[in-house]
Amino acid sequence: MQPNPLREKWASGARTFATTIVSGSSVIAQSMAAQAWDAIAIDVQHGAGGYDSAVAMIAACATSPTPIFVRVGSHDPAGIMRVLDAGALGIVCPAVESAAEAARFVGACRYAPAGYRSVGPLGALLRFGEDYVEQANAHVLTQAMIETRAGVERLDEILGTAGLDSIFVGPADLSLSHGWGHRFDAGRKEGLALVAMIAAKVRERGLVPAIHVVDPATVQTMLDIGYQHVVIANDLSLLARRTAELLARLGAR
Amino acid sequence: MQPNPLREKWASGARTFATTIVSGSSVIAQSMAAQAWDAIAIDVQHGAGGYDSAVAMIAACATSPTPIFVRVGSHDPAGIMRVLDAGALGIVCPAVESAAEAARFVGACRYAPAGYRSVGPLGALLRFGEDYVEQANAHVLTQAMIETRAGVERLDEILGTAGLDSIFVGPADLSLSHGWGHRFDAGRKEGLALVAMIAAKVRERGLVPAIHVVDPATVQTMLDIGYQHVVIANDLSLLARRTAELLARLGAR
Amino acid sequence: MQPNPLREKWASGARTFATTIVSGSSVIAQSMAAQAWDAIAIDVQHGAGGYDSAVAMIAACATSPTPIFVRVGSHDPAGIMRVLDAGALGIVCPAVESAAEAARFVGACRYAPAGYRSVGPLGALLRFGEDYVEQANAHVLTQAMIETRAGVERLDEILGTAGLDSIFVGPADLSLSHGWGHRFDAGRKEGLALVAMIAAKVRERGLVPAIHVVDPATVQTMLDIGYQHVVIANDLSLLARRTAELLARLGAR
Amino acid sequence: MQPNPLREKWASGARTFATTIVSGSSVIAQSMAAQAWDAIAIDVQHGAGGYDSAVAMIAACATSPTPIFVRVGSHDPAGIMRVLDAGALGIVCPAVESAAEAARFVGACRYAPAGYRSVGPLGALLRFGEDYVEQANAHVLTQAMIETRAGVERLDEILGTAGLDSIFVGPADLSLSHGWGHRFDAGRKEGLALVAMIAAKVRERGLVPAIHVVDPATVQTMLDIGYQHVVIANDLSLLARRTAELLARLGAR
Amino acid sequence: MQPNPLREKWASGARTFATTIVSGSSVIAQSMAAQAWDAIAIDVQHGAGGYDSAVAMIAACATSPTPIFVRVGSHDPAGIMRVLDAGALGIVCPAVESAAEAARFVGACRYAPAGYRSVGPLGALLRFGEDYVEQANAHVLTQAMIETRAGVERLDEILGTAGLDSIFVGPADLSLSHGWGHRFDAGRKEGLALVAMIAAKVRERGLVPAIHVVDPATVQTMLDIGYQHVVIANDLSLLARRTAELLARLGAR
Amino acid sequence: MQPNPLREKWASGARTFATTIVSGSSVIAQSMAAQAWDAIAIDVQHGAGGYDSAVAMIAACATSPTPIFVRVGSHDPAGIMRVLDAGALGIVCPAVESAAEAARFVGACRYAPAGYRSVGPLGALLRFGEDYVEQANAHVLTQAMIETRAGVERLDEILGTAGLDSIFVGPADLSLSHGWGHRFDAGRKEGLALVAMIAAKVRERGLVPAIHVVDPATVQTMLDIGYQHVVIANDLSLLARRTAELLARLGAR
Repeated sequence: MQPNPLREKWASGARTFATTIVSGSSVIAQSMAAQAWDAIAIDVQHGAGGYDSAVAMIAACATSPTPIFVRVGSHDPAGIMRVLDAGALGIVCPAVESAAEAARFVGACRYAPAGYRSVGPLGALLRFGEDYVEQANAHVLTQAMIETRAGVERLDEILGTAGLDSIFVGPADLSLSHGWGHRFDAGRKEGLALVAMIAAKVRERGLVPAIHVVDPATVQTMLDIGYQHVVIANDLSLLARRTAELLARLGAR
Repeated sequence: MQPNPLREKWASGARTFATTIVSGSSVIAQSMAAQAWDAIAIDVQHGAGGYDSAVAMIAACATSPTPIFVRVGSHDPAGIMRVLDAGALGIVCPAVESAAEAARFVGACRYAPAGYRSVGPLGALLRFGEDYVEQANAHVLTQAMIETRAGVERLDEILGTAGLDSIFVGPADLSLSHGWGHRFDAGRKEGLALVAMIAAKVRERGLVPAIHVVDPATVQTMLDIGYQHVVIANDLSLLARRTAELLARLGAR
Repeated sequence: MQPNPLREKWASGARTFATTIVSGSSVIAQSMAAQAWDAIAIDVQHGAGGYDSAVAMIAACATSPTPIFVRVGSHDPAGIMRVLDAGALGIVCPAVESAAEAARFVGACRYAPAGYRSVGPLGALLRFGEDYVEQANAHVLTQAMIETRAGVERLDEILGTAGLDSIFVGPADLSLSHGWGHRFDAGRKEGLALVAMIAAKVRERGLVPAIHVVDPATVQTMLDIGYQHVVIANDLSLLARRTAELLARLGAR
Repeated sequence: MQPNPLREKWASGARTFATTIVSGSSVIAQSMAAQAWDAIAIDVQHGAGGYDSAVAMIAACATSPTPIFVRVGSHDPAGIMRVLDAGALGIVCPAVESAAEAARFVGACRYAPAGYRSVGPLGALLRFGEDYVEQANAHVLTQAMIETRAGVERLDEILGTAGLDSIFVGPADLSLSHGWGHRFDAGRKEGLALVAMIAAKVRERGLVPAIHVVDPATVQTMLDIGYQHVVIANDLSLLARRTAELLARLGAR
Repeated sequence: MQPNPLREKWASGARTFATTIVSGSSVIAQSMAAQAWDAIAIDVQHGAGGYDSAVAMIAACATSPTPIFVRVGSHDPAGIMRVLDAGALGIVCPAVESAAEAARFVGACRYAPAGYRSVGPLGALLRFGEDYVEQANAHVLTQAMIETRAGVERLDEILGTAGLDSIFVGPADLSLSHGWGHRFDAGRKEGLALVAMIAAKVRERGLVPAIHVVDPATVQTMLDIGYQHVVIANDLSLLARRTAELLARLGAR
Repeated sequence: MQPNPLREKWASGARTFATTIVSGSSVIAQSMAAQAWDAIAIDVQHGAGGYDSAVAMIAACATSPTPIFVRVGSHDPAGIMRVLDAGALGIVCPAVESAAEAARFVGACRYAPAGYRSVGPLGALLRFGEDYVEQANAHVLTQAMIETRAGVERLDEILGTAGLDSIFVGPADLSLSHGWGHRFDAGRKEGLALVAMIAAKVRERGLVPAIHVVDPATVQTMLDIGYQHVVIANDLSLLARRTAELLARLGAR
């Protein structure tokens, strides 16, 4: 099994960039995986496709070495194991709010004795080779989302979870949960201070701080306050924004 | 965002009618939504399609203003949030048996601070407009099913759930759970008394009593004993009954 | 291979009834095939599903002995052979306008030496047994549509096609093609005379006259003027009409 | 039936812009249709999806009034009629090379007596209303592609086809067919002269000259030499280009 | 409803054989169900398809009387009920580790009063007839997997679960959970002793001991140590092994 | 673009082996492509999947360098171009019966000036790289089927087609067309003589003689009489045969 390239970049301290696929389209996923993204994140939670689409997208991306993450729909281990079986190299787990939840999440991503992932990696075997089961624990990355007040409050205990690789901040839900509306505003002091604080704590514990940004213009802000991995927008919003700029320039309508 | 027309009808006290789609077919759903039904209920629990089909059906019904409900397969918040993201305007939650379950269900349907629904409404944004997140809590209807003895016993506490809009009675399971067989018989005294009692309690607390009927002939009975919203049969049974009548008239076979 | 029951009914002179599936739904098709219809016709030409859906629907209907017809999208032999391979027991070929077209159509439905159907019946083997290839020519029914002026003009030569079993009249296109609008009106004298004339000619040559009716109320008219096989409406229109009647009775909206 | 807005813009002489969907994704199509494009063209010929995907995409775009074109895979009338039945308001026919081919193409788009389109518009009825069949001939736009030497040579006779609305130039195939490689180069004199000549001839005959451009930067060139309708790139290339610019700016890899 | 033939074979003490379908393909499932297997097990947990594929596969297998089992993805009752509604005649529940889990699993497979399965068997009604709800409890087989140390430790209490029919041993996870690697080796003494001990205990309590083998050569070993039902490999591995033997014989590459 | 490995093996005179996929399953296709086959042939003509399935299967096989052929459903150039766009490296064209048909077939597989293939290779670009259009004519293999009397009679003229790489004999249809039944019997003298004659003629003209065999036992016979490329059975029959042998050995039923 080839090493997960993102794991190596993270270990070297490199800044990395990913985008999200919400269209559920295998063709879009495959095309984006062929670009210079450090990772592609398939969104099962809020994307148009479910687990079947995710499995198909993971397969389609096999034409490129870019590692595929999946944001699963819930903490349910069955969903996590299914996309890992298909060949996902990272899992994003939504709304983690305690060490117990984090441990259950990480355990679903690791074969015994590190965890309780069940053996049966159909797509992953075809994609990564016969030694997949022996190697997988070392290459699958685990990313817990902090996106609620409860998650922030228990960040310290969550960071102590063995085998957790990264914390991924979801600014929209985090903002809504703090009563600041659902559009995270990087210009709002409290909001920025909160996400900066999270980044600092995560780095301190040796994990990778990651965050989502809707507007590519705010990537630099996030790098500046300490984020190492930035997930930029999604396929639909990148395309919509591109279209709007293009049509504005052409004076359409 | 346009108001949910069913919410307004319910508020006015109007009697309303819906049917269920169990075929999993987007074309059938779209065609039924174009009829004069007050709502269409997509059945994920016992219907042929799963969540992917439900998402496709909700999209297909966008050619009509009829609100789409989804009876989800379980209490799992991920499934509830997924069909809401797609544009469902109501959720039917099966076999609610306690106030805690009802609160968890309603919470999955409401953005903070009223609940814990996660932000990311892909299809709903395209369908209802940019202010969807701000408006959704006011338009999404929540309907808890009472279909077991346990649910009946705790009806009072369930009715106290903040944000719950309606109680939906499932006569088949309710009957089976009481040892009366799985075909609810409106002619059987105890059965009718039970569902009448439920309707009365629901009305008393200001919620909308709703019930399913297999045979269109029993709609009036249900209206008479106090039901405001009646869900009549499903696409397959309506079509089968129609066919049987037609072929009987033609003397076929 | 069990005999095609419709072939036997036709041979006995019995009047037979079918309906059309336009929803593309396997569940609807399976459910309709379980009713007392003498045949079910899957519509690839104007239905929502294409050949893939037709193949799936044919498979789904295997729970019932009702023979499945497919109205193919064009005269293309590849489409005809594909649904026969899947297990269709009849083909409806749209807009046949000459003996040459009819012969090409029938040839695609028959193995050599009677025709040029290619061998490879995947689904049909599983459905009908190992002797399918030997028996199929005797059980697959061929139905050419007459639905244009050109088709009517060349009806005599078309009726002379070896292996042709039935003529199926498409009143909507036939009416449009004669300048009478696309809603065939059985009350309009010329229209009724035309379809009666077709029925008479078809019977005279020993083939089965068949016709489509939109409104179940006109079935008797068609039987009276000589049609032996009547295809009544389709799944969507039967369901829509049923709904309209039901809601009217309930005084909805 | 609401008028086709593109028809009205074209009649007013307005310059119009469209893009192509090659991903086969209904979500991408729906999202693009919600932007300010004057039309969306679904590519069945070279896109990832076939006719089934096109039908689904047309349905998904019903949330927006933007007219949907389909570039069909061949001259086969069955494919043309299928996407029109689903609700397409325009057809792009590849590689038209004679007046006879153009007439056959246009005939497939028009009900009798103007053409030979068969009646059965399932999706279009739900989308556009009950008078669709009566109105459709006036609203469906026909666009013949000129993309081979043979097509250029017979441009005059093709332009004489009754009912043809527009000529759509395919620069890649046109260039390859002239021995200039498959990447049309607007900087190459002969190539630009050729497409300018085509635009002029088309305008002269009162039809709308349309062309595809891969690079948004060449849109103005095409407007300058007389094109009224420019189809810009496709969903995959817009997204890939956007990504490349973004990642270059971020200094990725 | 016809009796479940596997139930009868088990009752008679006959040795029975099944295979697993992991491809998610309805055609493969249907073809395998037409062979002399005593049962076919569709794998939702580690197979390529999810519940939607399982529902389609169950429908496709209706051309044969072979009972269809489904290994569900988790203990979630909604998934269990969905495949039962579709017509599965057996459920394999992964990683059962306590009597409480076993009871919850069995309860999901049984209508009240024996369990809490909800009424609404769409596909099963079409497949097994109108008396399905009355008969189903007697024909649906329940098989709990023992595949972890925790499961082995609590085997005795699990075996006491009312309504449990069989224990299915998953050697890969069982082996990994005991620190012996994920490839169960029947030649390793402790491993073989463990599975022999399980078989003995299961038989003693009157349940059917079942086990999975990867290599057909070890079937006899498992029969010898007391297993009554052996599930042999899966569609992919049978086909791959067959191919490897064939190509080796032909001296390929 | 990497060279097509089969082209190189054929040029070296090596004997090569392929199998056919009729299940329409991407997982089966991907798994078979990972075996030591020299090529995999996806069957659109008689397989369960249509063009959409073929496109998906081609994408799934990208995890292996094995070249993918597609037997298309008809001579229709649109179908041929679609699977080439997706990344097929060979086309099998059924029932070629004249030089004109062969030339039309080969032309659809070649970009101008060698043919008339239209530019737009979505999947092939992602799979083979940016120079695909420049290189494709040299790597796409064309295989015309001889499977009718008419094809045999015109074999000489067909063999003169510029750009044709191989002749593929379809014994079932060939046998049926000669009145010998649809099961080709290698023990029947005339049949064997006929296919031996075809192989000799094909070799003489420098093309690759290829043939399909149902029973792996007859591969050697075909190599002995001069065939260079043998396509052995299909996924379903390999699996069924394997199962039958296995169950016979186990004494099942």
